[in-house]
Amino acid sequence: MTDGTEAPGRFITFEGGEGVGKSTQVRLLADWLEGQGKDVLVTREPGGTPGAEAIRALLLDPTGTDWTLPAEALLFAAARADHVARVIRPALARGAWVICDRFIDSTRAYQGGEGALPDEVILQLHKVGSGGLLPDLTVLLEVSPQIAARRLLQRDGLASDRIGGRDARFHARVAHRFAEMAAAEPHRFARIDGGAVAEAVHAAVRACVAQRLGSKA
Amino acid sequence: MTDGTEAPGRFITFEGGEGVGKSTQVRLLADWLEGQGKDVLVTREPGGTPGAEAIRALLLDPTGTDWTLPAEALLFAAARADHVARVIRPALARGAWVICDRFIDSTRAYQGGEGALPDEVILQLHKVGSGGLLPDLTVLLEVSPQIAARRLLQRDGLASDRIGGRDARFHARVAHRFAEMAAAEPHRFARIDGGAVAEAVHAAVRACVAQRLGSKA
Repeated sequence: MTDGTEAPGRFITFEGGEGVGKSTQVRLLADWLEGQGKDVLVTREPGGTPGAEAIRALLLDPTGTDWTLPAEALLFAAARADHVARVIRPALARGAWVICDRFIDSTRAYQGGEGALPDEVILQLHKVGSGGLLPDLTVLLEVSPQIAARRLLQRDGLASDRIGGRDARFHARVAHRFAEMAAAEPHRFARIDGGAVAEAVHAAVRACVAQRLGSKA
Repeated sequence: MTDGTEAPGRFITFEGGEGVGKSTQVRLLADWLEGQGKDVLVTREPGGTPGAEAIRALLLDPTGTDWTLPAEALLFAAARADHVARVIRPALARGAWVICDRFIDSTRAYQGGEGALPDEVILQLHKVGSGGLLPDLTVLLEVSPQIAARRLLQRDGLASDRIGGRDARFHARVAHRFAEMAAAEPHRFARIDGGAVAEAVHAAVRACVAQRLGSKA
């Protein structure tokens, strides 16, 4: 992890819009690392702890309060603070490989950007809540909007919650924000084409993990 | 209000530890101002909106998560952001006198200070969530620990929630933090002895409001 504290574990996050294949690739990578005898912890955001799940319920309830952007960012930061303090840091401290489905970059992509919260404010909240913890490696999965839409339809029927219900232009903006972040931090991010079959994408993820974090491919 | 935006209303907060008489004095001041024909809005923290109440329930549930200090501060800031955006700012914008039972200074006194969160971090979160809104006048009610304990016993029997259950040393530290804040911002704070009978305290509050905010005493 790259916040200045020493921890023996490795912290890998998967990012990208909906339908890019994050949960599938998280599972395949976890299986592969476990097959190598590693201590692997798989988790996800928003959520990851009972407290964070309770906040997630507040955030996603489509009948509930329509939170202001700053309130939403504060709630995400609080949920992440709980998740980092109770799950991620203890696992890293014991030397585990932590794989997290979405993390701070999702907040930056979905809540930040034009007409929304400045990126530096989101990172400031992350510093307050979670000591600014950043992953050792962030795998950004990218697919065409057509592929993402087809996968979402197969998975969910029609997307139903607040985030899933947003329109194509919003999703294009999110994809653009992710690409910008990856360009700004090339040593942390790896952009991987998620459009191929799952096993082929997994091979690319494996190669990337081996190269960046020194695991055997 | 003193965050640089122009609003015709007046914003008064009551602060102090438990048992100092805040809710009684809020009610007496509201009645007095209403008797003068003013548009008065009474509210309180934590809470004040359905969203903020939902967060309050997360924070106060004694069977729930024991939040980390940063998570707690982020949750308070999110609740306050909702309260400010939906209730306080709209009322100030229409010219109302807003009286709030606890506000940002309670967070600073209870969550900030030695061994806890730096005051500047709490104010930073307040800037993100609520644009740094500060009251025109903050009435700090102060009583001796003996009087506070007697009033709490009369009101609640034994204090039962997380904040009320904390010990005497904690309450002394909170009182000290409030006094420090008042000393640092004498133009915003008015320290008033809350140990007398309610009507006498109210007379002092009235005189203070008249002097500071130009209302007839």
